[in-house]
Amino acid sequence: MSVERTADLTEAQLDLDRQRRCGYPEVVYAAGKSIDTLDKIYRRLIAEQVDVFSTRVSPEQAEALTPRFAGARYNPASRTIRIPRAGEEPKRAGFVAVITAGTSDLPVAEEARETLDWMGVGSALIQDVGVAGPHRLPARLHEFVHADAIVVVAGMEGALPSVVGGYVGCPVVAVPTSVGYGANLGGVAALLSMLNSCAANVTVVNIDAGFKAGYVAGLIANRTPNPHPRQ
Amino acid sequence: MSVERTADLTEAQLDLDRQRRCGYPEVVYAAGKSIDTLDKIYRRLIAEQVDVFSTRVSPEQAEALTPRFAGARYNPASRTIRIPRAGEEPKRAGFVAVITAGTSDLPVAEEARETLDWMGVGSALIQDVGVAGPHRLPARLHEFVHADAIVVVAGMEGALPSVVGGYVGCPVVAVPTSVGYGANLGGVAALLSMLNSCAANVTVVNIDAGFKAGYVAGLIANRTPNPHPRQ
Amino acid sequence: MSVERTADLTEAQLDLDRQRRCGYPEVVYAAGKSIDTLDKIYRRLIAEQVDVFSTRVSPEQAEALTPRFAGARYNPASRTIRIPRAGEEPKRAGFVAVITAGTSDLPVAEEARETLDWMGVGSALIQDVGVAGPHRLPARLHEFVHADAIVVVAGMEGALPSVVGGYVGCPVVAVPTSVGYGANLGGVAALLSMLNSCAANVTVVNIDAGFKAGYVAGLIANRTPNPHPRQ
Amino acid sequence: MSVERTADLTEAQLDLDRQRRCGYPEVVYAAGKSIDTLDKIYRRLIAEQVDVFSTRVSPEQAEALTPRFAGARYNPASRTIRIPRAGEEPKRAGFVAVITAGTSDLPVAEEARETLDWMGVGSALIQDVGVAGPHRLPARLHEFVHADAIVVVAGMEGALPSVVGGYVGCPVVAVPTSVGYGANLGGVAALLSMLNSCAANVTVVNIDAGFKAGYVAGLIANRTPNPHPRQ
Amino acid sequence: MSVERTADLTEAQLDLDRQRRCGYPEVVYAAGKSIDTLDKIYRRLIAEQVDVFSTRVSPEQAEALTPRFAGARYNPASRTIRIPRAGEEPKRAGFVAVITAGTSDLPVAEEARETLDWMGVGSALIQDVGVAGPHRLPARLHEFVHADAIVVVAGMEGALPSVVGGYVGCPVVAVPTSVGYGANLGGVAALLSMLNSCAANVTVVNIDAGFKAGYVAGLIANRTPNPHPRQ
Amino acid sequence: MSVERTADLTEAQLDLDRQRRCGYPEVVYAAGKSIDTLDKIYRRLIAEQVDVFSTRVSPEQAEALTPRFAGARYNPASRTIRIPRAGEEPKRAGFVAVITAGTSDLPVAEEARETLDWMGVGSALIQDVGVAGPHRLPARLHEFVHADAIVVVAGMEGALPSVVGGYVGCPVVAVPTSVGYGANLGGVAALLSMLNSCAANVTVVNIDAGFKAGYVAGLIANRTPNPHPRQ
Amino acid sequence: MSVERTADLTEAQLDLDRQRRCGYPEVVYAAGKSIDTLDKIYRRLIAEQVDVFSTRVSPEQAEALTPRFAGARYNPASRTIRIPRAGEEPKRAGFVAVITAGTSDLPVAEEARETLDWMGVGSALIQDVGVAGPHRLPARLHEFVHADAIVVVAGMEGALPSVVGGYVGCPVVAVPTSVGYGANLGGVAALLSMLNSCAANVTVVNIDAGFKAGYVAGLIANRTPNPHPRQ
Amino acid sequence: MSVERTADLTEAQLDLDRQRRCGYPEVVYAAGKSIDTLDKIYRRLIAEQVDVFSTRVSPEQAEALTPRFAGARYNPASRTIRIPRAGEEPKRAGFVAVITAGTSDLPVAEEARETLDWMGVGSALIQDVGVAGPHRLPARLHEFVHADAIVVVAGMEGALPSVVGGYVGCPVVAVPTSVGYGANLGGVAALLSMLNSCAANVTVVNIDAGFKAGYVAGLIANRTPNPHPRQ
Repeated sequence: MSVERTADLTEAQLDLDRQRRCGYPEVVYAAGKSIDTLDKIYRRLIAEQVDVFSTRVSPEQAEALTPRFAGARYNPASRTIRIPRAGEEPKRAGFVAVITAGTSDLPVAEEARETLDWMGVGSALIQDVGVAGPHRLPARLHEFVHADAIVVVAGMEGALPSVVGGYVGCPVVAVPTSVGYGANLGGVAALLSMLNSCAANVTVVNIDAGFKAGYVAGLIANRTPNPHPRQ
Repeated sequence: MSVERTADLTEAQLDLDRQRRCGYPEVVYAAGKSIDTLDKIYRRLIAEQVDVFSTRVSPEQAEALTPRFAGARYNPASRTIRIPRAGEEPKRAGFVAVITAGTSDLPVAEEARETLDWMGVGSALIQDVGVAGPHRLPARLHEFVHADAIVVVAGMEGALPSVVGGYVGCPVVAVPTSVGYGANLGGVAALLSMLNSCAANVTVVNIDAGFKAGYVAGLIANRTPNPHPRQ
Repeated sequence: MSVERTADLTEAQLDLDRQRRCGYPEVVYAAGKSIDTLDKIYRRLIAEQVDVFSTRVSPEQAEALTPRFAGARYNPASRTIRIPRAGEEPKRAGFVAVITAGTSDLPVAEEARETLDWMGVGSALIQDVGVAGPHRLPARLHEFVHADAIVVVAGMEGALPSVVGGYVGCPVVAVPTSVGYGANLGGVAALLSMLNSCAANVTVVNIDAGFKAGYVAGLIANRTPNPHPRQ
Repeated sequence: MSVERTADLTEAQLDLDRQRRCGYPEVVYAAGKSIDTLDKIYRRLIAEQVDVFSTRVSPEQAEALTPRFAGARYNPASRTIRIPRAGEEPKRAGFVAVITAGTSDLPVAEEARETLDWMGVGSALIQDVGVAGPHRLPARLHEFVHADAIVVVAGMEGALPSVVGGYVGCPVVAVPTSVGYGANLGGVAALLSMLNSCAANVTVVNIDAGFKAGYVAGLIANRTPNPHPRQ
Repeated sequence: MSVERTADLTEAQLDLDRQRRCGYPEVVYAAGKSIDTLDKIYRRLIAEQVDVFSTRVSPEQAEALTPRFAGARYNPASRTIRIPRAGEEPKRAGFVAVITAGTSDLPVAEEARETLDWMGVGSALIQDVGVAGPHRLPARLHEFVHADAIVVVAGMEGALPSVVGGYVGCPVVAVPTSVGYGANLGGVAALLSMLNSCAANVTVVNIDAGFKAGYVAGLIANRTPNPHPRQ
Repeated sequence: MSVERTADLTEAQLDLDRQRRCGYPEVVYAAGKSIDTLDKIYRRLIAEQVDVFSTRVSPEQAEALTPRFAGARYNPASRTIRIPRAGEEPKRAGFVAVITAGTSDLPVAEEARETLDWMGVGSALIQDVGVAGPHRLPARLHEFVHADAIVVVAGMEGALPSVVGGYVGCPVVAVPTSVGYGANLGGVAALLSMLNSCAANVTVVNIDAGFKAGYVAGLIANRTPNPHPRQ
Repeated sequence: MSVERTADLTEAQLDLDRQRRCGYPEVVYAAGKSIDTLDKIYRRLIAEQVDVFSTRVSPEQAEALTPRFAGARYNPASRTIRIPRAGEEPKRAGFVAVITAGTSDLPVAEEARETLDWMGVGSALIQDVGVAGPHRLPARLHEFVHADAIVVVAGMEGALPSVVGGYVGCPVVAVPTSVGYGANLGGVAALLSMLNSCAANVTVVNIDAGFKAGYVAGLIANRTPNPHPRQ
Repeated sequence: MSVERTADLTEAQLDLDRQRRCGYPEVVYAAGKSIDTLDKIYRRLIAEQVDVFSTRVSPEQAEALTPRFAGARYNPASRTIRIPRAGEEPKRAGFVAVITAGTSDLPVAEEARETLDWMGVGSALIQDVGVAGPHRLPARLHEFVHADAIVVVAGMEGALPSVVGGYVGCPVVAVPTSVGYGANLGGVAALLSMLNSCAANVTVVNIDAGFKAGYVAGLIANRTPNPHPRQ
């Protein structure tokens, strides 16, 4: 077996072999890490020519870190940091639609969209087309029916992925959100709803896991040689 | 305050005043009662000129009881017994649509429909129009849009009530069913989904509670002086 | 099928067809929306001649928004904003009693009451008549026995809707609240209690969902041609 | 400290000191024990002059065991075996009312009643007075208002103990039952309801724990020198 | 039936008949009530010659209220306010031991003890004798073996009530606390443990419900004509 | 919008438009359907030239149905029925590896494999390579590293998908199974484990949902023009 | 790294390297495996000179398998099969006490004891010394105080491990059992209790996991060069 | 039986006999204790010649307490205080590896490591070797394969203990952490995963219970006369 490269930063073991093995380099989950640890990780990745992408970055972390890295950009909605490699143009292969049920689901959708951007996958954002206004979704059908994969973001009853799944032939990655109150149980209601979807093409990720949904959808879209571009 | 009438059968206290107070006589929940107790209760109600209606009657209970009462009819799908008063024609006031997401939800829907029959409320049954086939529901819209109230019966992700709720102006009574497996948690997934419905006109009853859904929908429809008959 | 009108505000898709379809215009759920988004939505609705009603408005949101709209009124108990159409007198059709088990349930009851006001449905508030003082409820019977529908708001053991349901013939919409501690599990105890109510006329909405309870009760009451006015 | 007496039967350690320490001898929980083990335990207790009482005895266990012991009596409703000491007349001290919400709660109530009998405490059984028929309970008030303690047995929403608690000054021991379906979660709904009771005099035991409820109520009643006899 | 007296304070309905019916006047649960409402309630009760007792009083509520009432005393550990009637000496009838498993359980135990004081029942506090130090409890046996009732307060695994129950013949009221972390689930672990106690004399109240435990224990002790005083 | 074709069989509404819309015809979920209903559905699909595939077919259902349809084949492990179109050779596009953690996970894996067969997607089954024998998985790496998608089936702690995800660049569809006992909570433990996977390419379906996992993996693999065939 | 040996039986991958790596060969979990698969596995292990040990063997499996293997012994209490190597005398190193709270916990304790036997570790079984009879445990102290490790098996409130933990200095492995009813939630109550144990030397295994508890205790005891033999 | 020594500090009962009985003196759990109480306890233990160790010490508690005790040292990562006995050199017997899945699990691992230090047991910390980077753990195998016991700390899916368990023959103590979000349910997902581990040598402690894991691992390692030192 080939030798795997790891960067030993004591409190973190950077997996430098991941791009070869999995197609994309490691993404840095910032929650629970100190500014110093993040600084050390970002620098090491940049030294390895990695296009740095970091999720769950708090405003405080972002304020401390972005000035230290040229080209670093913080998206306060998605709470992500991106430090692109110099002189690079992202290639656009594949197309993913990101659809939200309500206005409050935006932060999770933005995390998915930033992930797709970083992967070089095209995306479109279709917002606030939840099931209670049943005409809103079909009216936008032309915007997502040709997608290679679809990310559907929904809180409360989490019904939207099942409906989207019934309209299309591509895989649907459903993201439950913690939007709602009371018996939403912090997103568990939407999660269970999506797991029990009667649409056969729906899979599910963790509550509020915009990154993972975007990543899997991007993997699916990226494999497709004839991506259906957004018209 | 008026004197309430109660029939003391030792193990059961029949509330003979209920029709005056609540508009309908007591319905007999058969689960966990012996044949003897049910026999005693049915006889007493018949003696009081009550149109007997009994739910959750097992096939074994039905087999023992129906031969003992003239005109008794057992519906094996809804598991209900009905013993109508002699010479009576049920009046038909109001109209309720009973809609199911899937074929397996039928027993619960039938319990609701039998309840509406007993209440003298008209009803229509629209089956298997769950959200994964998104065109099935709108195609039937003309059959339920004029209803006074709608009962929606769904298992699995329990998304249908929210969609129905978005099409109509009348109250929607949602009944989660235990249909499904795994993370449906015996119907809890559908229950939570319905409680978190983003449609404002949706209320919820217990899992598999077809009787209660039919009863409440019937109360709503019955109050309406100009019921919209099924065309 | 008729053409549905939607106002595309990018992060929100206003359903301008709802009044035609569902009888009432869209209500604006403020939680998780920015001041700017709410401002944009309110203005568009006013331009459409809509009597604006907004729920779950925080004091901070209210302080920023109410000065911008003539006639806007914030109820800090119910946390709702109302911006009535100019020159309009609300019609009063139907009558709903709103009953609370304890003093701490008031905010949820107020949300229900404001909703009924906005719908043009008459209402009465009967407070602190929970089951541990068993004589308090019957003493107020004359105030709610003629209602078209009743909203019962209760936390802790959530027993009141079952008791109210036994006194009346109209539908009872039960609202569990998060009032209590420990094994109340944030309102889940009261929710389960209400879902298992042995009273046949009780349906349930989400924990603390005062708006939805008021809305459904209002729909029921409003259909009634001979509303029983509060004497 | 005094020396405690224990009978070592290998798979069971009989606590022969319990009567001295706790006022009553050990009760034999039969579930999960073999016929042989039960036979051995009963014989040893009889040899110690103990009035044997055994709970959760299945019909199969009872059929095998009762013929072996003179005077043994099996109650199939409560699923208890009693083998009284020869020549003894049970003394009657104190009075406990056992109240059920519905007919199906009887087996649990019977277990409580048999326990009280064995303890020599007087009892009365008041059945089927649940809250949905609000007039049934006050009509029986004279039968339980003078009790030393009250056992209230209820499934479904478990509301009855709170109501009973509001009428009396004595302790109320609430027993949730598994009667119901769906969101009753096997009795958890009633259990949570009772734990959150707003009546200050209500304590709770395990689901279907008729023996424990009867035992605690009996302890309370038995301490009372002037028991209020049932008139 | 006798006429029940109620004081209508709009947002609160004071049950002035409770002392006659239940033996003690109403206790004022302060959580979720405004200073004004509490002020109004306290004054009305004082006018009725009631010895005022109020639980779950926050330090902020206490700071505002205690200066307004002569003789008012706030216990910051138990978070209770007491405003005794002038010139009155509390009678001491009965004796209750209050036992805690750990030092952090003290606030709940203090709430129980203040309740017993207000009821005129003698009490002793035995602290930090949890099961992991198995010799600590038997060493204190002489302090609680003669009690009329025992309150046991425990968090974490909640094992202490079972052990105490095995030593005594009187009823044990177990109070689970939210002390602990992780899989204690906010006190649910201790609650379940106590509900499943193999000791026959253990009943349970809600998590952190010191008041209710003290109240029930006080009711039991108070009925006893020959209280066993603390030596 | 195009006209959707539906076959109205009263208790079932067959979505004949699904192949056009979603790429594959409807699959027949047999649980809870009568023999008659299934017979009716199969016949109608065959008349529409559909390659019939039916899941969750009990042995009793299979015994009644398979003799009625020429070429029908029942797989007792996967509990699926397949009735291929006459004269048709399944095309093989794409390649999916189906990996199980333990021997008892086979039935769920077989359901996935039968689904892939029906979709015309190549597959390989790699069994019993769970994490407790850490060398078993890497030893089989060459069998799955080139897959277009991977289905991982695991009960108990459900750890295998995370480990597989770390080795490959394609999407991993994780299926929790109900294999295990006690704190596996019927598969919920494995489900939660998979939802919290730290591997970015893992999505999840319902407990025991072999069909859905196979279907989504098949959709992903099928889109790939250069499938990596199993060597 | 050394080459690991695996026996590929298609549906099972036998880890023949485990003895070298982990100290003991693979144990065969029989639940969910066919007679044929078990037969194949047993034969292969015997061919490898392994002392076969198999858990969760149903009576039906045992009846089919034991006659096929010379020296095979089935313990119906522990539901284990043992096929010792010919001519071998088990060495006895280390000593583990297995303690049960109640008589019904025996099957789980027996599974632990059989495991220790197979490992060549001495053990003693101390039964029915649960906390409600507080004198039973200390009376047996001399039988377990010198153990190298202790397995404590308890259902219901699961309090015994904490008490045992307070008496000894060795590790205590706690096994919750599903013994009990109602709020024991199938053993979850005892599990939570044990996880929250205030005794520092208590760790926990899955509900009813007698094998794992015995195995870990055996590993601890076996490492000890000076085992404390049972006197 | 020998006389146990207890120091009665009223709100705390110090178990001065524990070192004799359990091998180590009492550890002081600081959460929920006042500065005064902690001061009193620390002083008393120092007077008894105890090497003081205190866990769950908040920064505020530490700031107040450390200046008062010579030699006191606060570790802000582990939140522990240590006040070693003067002139003492900790003996090093046994060796425990502490392994974390991710960088954010460090605080819990540090609590385990400080505990081992206090027990005089050698330890090594191996960080960030979770399963998603499958090569990281085997690369460190030489650092932990000779350990007497291993503590594995992991949040999210909690899969690492099973993998570690498969590589070694010593006991593995698994600590779930609350690291993660959404369906991690505050650490419950990782806890369930670990309880269901298919590795036979894995036991589990409470969520975030670094102290207990370190303590049990230390007990195991310490008993070993021939500790395998870290090379």
